[in-house]
Amino acid sequence: MTVAEYILKFLISKNVKNVFLMNGGAISFVVDAFSKNKNIKYTCVAHEQSAAMMADAYSRCDKGFGATMVTSGPGAQNLITGIACSWFDSVPVIHICGQVNKFELSTSNKTTKKVRQIGFQETDIVSMVKPIIKFAYQLKNSNEIKYILEKAFYIANEGRPGPVLLDIPMNLQKEKINLTKLISFRRPEVKNNKIIIQSCINRIKKLLLKSERPILVIGGGIRMSKAVNELEKFLKKTNIPIVTTWSGLDVIDFNHRNYIGSIGVYGSRAANFAVQNADLVLNFGSRLDTRVTGGRPETFARLAKIISVDIDKHELNKKRGLNVYMKINQDLKKFLSIFNSKSTNFKYSINSHWENICKNWKRNYPNSLSSYANQKKYVNPYFFFERLSDKLNNKDIIVSDTGGSLTWTVQAFKIKKGQRLFSAYGNSPMGYAFPAALGASLANNKKNRVICIEGDGGIQINIQELQTMVNYNIPVKLFIINNNGYGIIKQFQELYLNKRYEATIPSKGVTNPDFKKISNAYNINYNEIKFNSEIDKILKKVLISKKPEFINVIIDSNQKIIPKLQFGKPIEDLSPLLSRSEFNKNMIIASLQENSSDFNEAN
Amino acid sequence: MTVAEYILKFLISKNVKNVFLMNGGAISFVVDAFSKNKNIKYTCVAHEQSAAMMADAYSRCDKGFGATMVTSGPGAQNLITGIACSWFDSVPVIHICGQVNKFELSTSNKTTKKVRQIGFQETDIVSMVKPIIKFAYQLKNSNEIKYILEKAFYIANEGRPGPVLLDIPMNLQKEKINLTKLISFRRPEVKNNKIIIQSCINRIKKLLLKSERPILVIGGGIRMSKAVNELEKFLKKTNIPIVTTWSGLDVIDFNHRNYIGSIGVYGSRAANFAVQNADLVLNFGSRLDTRVTGGRPETFARLAKIISVDIDKHELNKKRGLNVYMKINQDLKKFLSIFNSKSTNFKYSINSHWENICKNWKRNYPNSLSSYANQKKYVNPYFFFERLSDKLNNKDIIVSDTGGSLTWTVQAFKIKKGQRLFSAYGNSPMGYAFPAALGASLANNKKNRVICIEGDGGIQINIQELQTMVNYNIPVKLFIINNNGYGIIKQFQELYLNKRYEATIPSKGVTNPDFKKISNAYNINYNEIKFNSEIDKILKKVLISKKPEFINVIIDSNQKIIPKLQFGKPIEDLSPLLSRSEFNKNMIIASLQENSSDFNEAN
Repeated sequence: MTVAEYILKFLISKNVKNVFLMNGGAISFVVDAFSKNKNIKYTCVAHEQSAAMMADAYSRCDKGFGATMVTSGPGAQNLITGIACSWFDSVPVIHICGQVNKFELSTSNKTTKKVRQIGFQETDIVSMVKPIIKFAYQLKNSNEIKYILEKAFYIANEGRPGPVLLDIPMNLQKEKINLTKLISFRRPEVKNNKIIIQSCINRIKKLLLKSERPILVIGGGIRMSKAVNELEKFLKKTNIPIVTTWSGLDVIDFNHRNYIGSIGVYGSRAANFAVQNADLVLNFGSRLDTRVTGGRPETFARLAKIISVDIDKHELNKKRGLNVYMKINQDLKKFLSIFNSKSTNFKYSINSHWENICKNWKRNYPNSLSSYANQKKYVNPYFFFERLSDKLNNKDIIVSDTGGSLTWTVQAFKIKKGQRLFSAYGNSPMGYAFPAALGASLANNKKNRVICIEGDGGIQINIQELQTMVNYNIPVKLFIINNNGYGIIKQFQELYLNKRYEATIPSKGVTNPDFKKISNAYNINYNEIKFNSEIDKILKKVLISKKPEFINVIIDSNQKIIPKLQFGKPIEDLSPLLSRSEFNKNMIIASLQENSSDFNEAN
Repeated sequence: MTVAEYILKFLISKNVKNVFLMNGGAISFVVDAFSKNKNIKYTCVAHEQSAAMMADAYSRCDKGFGATMVTSGPGAQNLITGIACSWFDSVPVIHICGQVNKFELSTSNKTTKKVRQIGFQETDIVSMVKPIIKFAYQLKNSNEIKYILEKAFYIANEGRPGPVLLDIPMNLQKEKINLTKLISFRRPEVKNNKIIIQSCINRIKKLLLKSERPILVIGGGIRMSKAVNELEKFLKKTNIPIVTTWSGLDVIDFNHRNYIGSIGVYGSRAANFAVQNADLVLNFGSRLDTRVTGGRPETFARLAKIISVDIDKHELNKKRGLNVYMKINQDLKKFLSIFNSKSTNFKYSINSHWENICKNWKRNYPNSLSSYANQKKYVNPYFFFERLSDKLNNKDIIVSDTGGSLTWTVQAFKIKKGQRLFSAYGNSPMGYAFPAALGASLANNKKNRVICIEGDGGIQINIQELQTMVNYNIPVKLFIINNNGYGIIKQFQELYLNKRYEATIPSKGVTNPDFKKISNAYNINYNEIKFNSEIDKILKKVLISKKPEFINVIIDSNQKIIPKLQFGKPIEDLSPLLSRSEFNKNMIIASLQENSSDFNEAN
């Protein structure tokens, strides 16, 4: 058995079923091993960047482990933006990169260490990805392949997950290995800290019983630790009002009786009021990033005791004004399992007054206003996402891109329990959603319907993968939320740069191709939604299709993201600002209210 | 004046006329400065990868200095493949990346150093690019902007050139600076080593006078040091037979009386015979990479004294079997200037017997065989490039991609003095040629005709830039050398993997869109060349066009690269192997000949 053959065998044992790859000289021996192994397949992409994003989404879907294979040099370099997506969002993925022969490595010889390149397309990818990867390693000899693969998979999954990369010189790929001589990686022993957790849980219960206005914040950590079921049990027991971050959005049904909305700079007024008025915040797996806390973290939930459960101790200890009362450095699945198993007799009934206030907020401050339905010119994106979410079922997967298209998605979409909705939230590259949607569809063997939400700028980034969609007949429904420019930057330019729209609008260099003609060129069904009144008809048609579909949703080029926090404000005070009297009514704790005489009717 | 405004002012002073950019939150203050400065413009791209490649080609064209501006995180990450092109090929380019505000940097605080990300889209790009850049720096305060810009430009250009990158936090971009308080960078003093050079030159002259079979090897260093004119003077004086590497190809007219051809693994038989039979090799600016020397560098020019002039001492000292007799660590322009000025009385006449042998090689072993013209099915790429080069004029710029499309270009193209022909030789990513061609056209204000040679795989990598071509009406002639798969890897699979074409052919996942429909979608003129007989007619039509043109050149999907070195052979023995008697006739030194009884009629 060669190293290449061993790699495939190993990947299969780790639930890798479909490798996203692009062939090239330095990876060709590994790719060749597919010809002798029918238990694993591959999908060819048209740009390695997409391979990394497809593998990332594949892992997020939790039906298998995401993997790529690419050649040395530009092949590996092209992965980087996708690797960063997995790193910042804690997604385990393995990247297998080909490398030049060992004797062609500049590091192989004292005299060549400082030469820019020895082997053709040689690149020190291991050093380059260090800041965005959990483990990267260049194979030194063929006998360590088992050890290194085991170590790589262990590291990718342990603690806070993330991507790993192996760089494998060509000559080693084809070397024969003696299976009996391979050494194994030994997992470090895990300390049993059940007793510590139990004491934390007891303290939390006491704090809960004393709290009048508790709020549960759900972040990406619930999905990451595969704790969705454990969370559900916890919710049944406690009935605490719930807000989510964007990463936590698809853990809970929008209509769940305790759910209020998503928090943060682009959050809902309702959810922001809730968390800002709370006296106790149970934070399950959110890193409480500044997009969640606002630019001044000290203003976040400033009347509350914050209890954070996070697998990453660095996130718990980062301070920056955040005042975390109790830090629990623990895997959420384990934490919640213990909580649930130790709480059979725990009686907790939520303060019904608080519960009602939260429900009123949700009712009174929807992100999507009813007036949006009446918009006559162009499609209103809030109304569109309301209609879209209404029509989707609980097995659908929604992948959204970045900027405006993402913000409108998360602000207006009403998740049904079971649905997945994700984006590459931390890295947030333009063009992630489309390859990710392809990866998500393949992760589910094309069975679950996959809805891709792209911007008109975003789709151009990885537009080459339309060919992959067609070639493999991947029935993604690709919606372009088309505002003919870079909307979220335009909104910034309007606010802070006196409407100087440099490099964001057509007359300043940012233009779109004719998407109808592009779709036709790739032989993909094309539809356009130009008015609110056309939404239902077109959705009906494209959502039942079993084929790839391209839907161009034309929105106003000046469409704003509403509400949105202005820099420096605490998150309860989203723009457009409410009148101070209305604002004060919602800040039920007097110390949070503003003196209405200070109020300027800005924005 | 703000830092952003200062940056533009500074770039103008360094001959940056057109910045390739994509706007985004973290770079928006710098981009905004364009609204107040009409002495510099920008070009919007659809993917940052292209911006880096366009800037790279812009610098290669030597009409201005290449620059990009991109946002933090994915914006900067997307540059990496382009930066690597500049690094490996020694091209000076400056990349200006936006970064999150200083207080949002994870490095801004002891407690956050180990957190994956603090600011939204924060990425440690400075560390990531270290292995592929001369200088990368994150601005610490606004007062160092002048110093850092001066330092960056100094480093980009000094010694062996290369790319540099500045990472500029948002808050610093908009800070006002006091011009009188800015400090300057002081260039290190350069040692005057004229006397040492002169003594080298005297030794070289003596060696030349003793040599019976001298060869001049021209590499990329001639262009890089802007020594084309100095080389010309040198040639007039010495008349030494000349071979080039691919990077040196466009320094000399194919019909120059001393020119033989290009050397290496995919070189011409003629040029390889010449360098392998030489007793003296004057190497001007080639790093003598393994693509030039063959996989066993000790077999390269093994009867010759090699004299190498290279600005990079690490290249001179790398050994690996290469036996360099005399190493001159010097800028070629300076070296040749001194040589020329000190050689008014130097009389050198080339051994006419040797000169004739070289001329015979060139005549007897053309890369493009006359029989190729008669090919009836599909276009023969060798014949095509002969015809194309015949029709081009001496101001045209040819940019070629990688793999088969590049190899056929350099093997068959006949350069006219004044033409430029380049690719990203060292990094050699698929998809470089197209954005590079756009950058080259803009570098010349669209005045010089730019011919882009892409593969069918390569064009898909940056196909989004068809929109940039159309939007800015850049009249590039885009030729696709279409073999419907990854030809160069197929040839490898045929040789070494028993024709298992995994991930290289349509039935194994590698497919093309309908390029005619794609061109129509972007409103670009489209033509197809299916047979040799159609070449002239179509070329005539597209080459006079003032518009962008897309030309799909259909070649046999099994078209081979001929000749090509098999791994392990010395470069004089290209495949298909010559009969040993013919081979031996060309190895004019007995010790280089092979015993004909050993000969197997392989291939």
